Amino acid sequence: MCVFCDIIKGDIPCYKIYEDENTIAFLDIANDVYGHTLVIPKKHYQNLIDIPVEELNNVMKSAKKLSEHFVKNCGFTGVNLINCCGKDAEQSVFHFHIHIIPRKNEDNLKIYPILKKSEFDLKEIQEKLKIV
Amino acid sequence: MCVFCDIIKGDIPCYKIYEDENTIAFLDIANDVYGHTLVIPKKHYQNLIDIPVEELNNVMKSAKKLSEHFVKNCGFTGVNLINCCGKDAEQSVFHFHIHIIPRKNEDNLKIYPILKKSEFDLKEIQEKLKIV
Repeated sequence: MCVFCDIIKGDIPCYKIYEDENTIAFLDIANDVYGHTLVIPKKHYQNLIDIPVEELNNVMKSAKKLSEHFVKNCGFTGVNLINCCGKDAEQSVFHFHIHIIPRKNEDNLKIYPILKKSEFDLKEIQEKLKIV
Repeated sequence: MCVFCDIIKGDIPCYKIYEDENTIAFLDIANDVYGHTLVIPKKHYQNLIDIPVEELNNVMKSAKKLSEHFVKNCGFTGVNLINCCGKDAEQSVFHFHIHIIPRKNEDNLKIYPILKKSEFDLKEIQEKLKIV
């Protein structure tokens, strides 16, 4: 039971804007930002941890292609990409997807999050998180 | 004159947490969210439009590797990825970078943007934005 798999099968309609062998892109039916698009692999993977690198590459290639199209042909001047990996990261549909949010000057959007300044010891965080 | 190129050259210090042949990852000195990491290609590309697919793949591979490390080894339960492409999309350093924001249950963060519901005609948007 996955709503995005149902979209891929054609059991649920979508506003498709791109498709290739491995991926599909359609408008987010949240209907919030003009052109808000989701890019997904046709195969089911839960999230960024679950998806193999090759499939991630397929999705990113489509996300880049669409972003270029939005900027070069559709009157936008930028895009944001967002991925939520895991419930605690606000993921709501558990089929890997990249959000593309097309941007324009003075679009009155705030997509990059507002983050409070902290006083962490970055050297200590580096020691804890680094891959050696 | 690019601050990220200076970091790669070693002219500016950074809290590096990962490096491979083509990419480097370091803590965001904004010092906001614990573990907020930037992943960048060693070669200079302005943004998502500018970066070739192969280099984008290199960056995403590192972003995935770090995300897995954060979840499997560092006590996080998810991550958000964010990319800002273009000034109008709130990009501030014009060397392509992916933000990784590690997440945990009850971390009191709101990373996915709050977006107002609209009344766009999605069929009409589909016609304008689709790649045929």
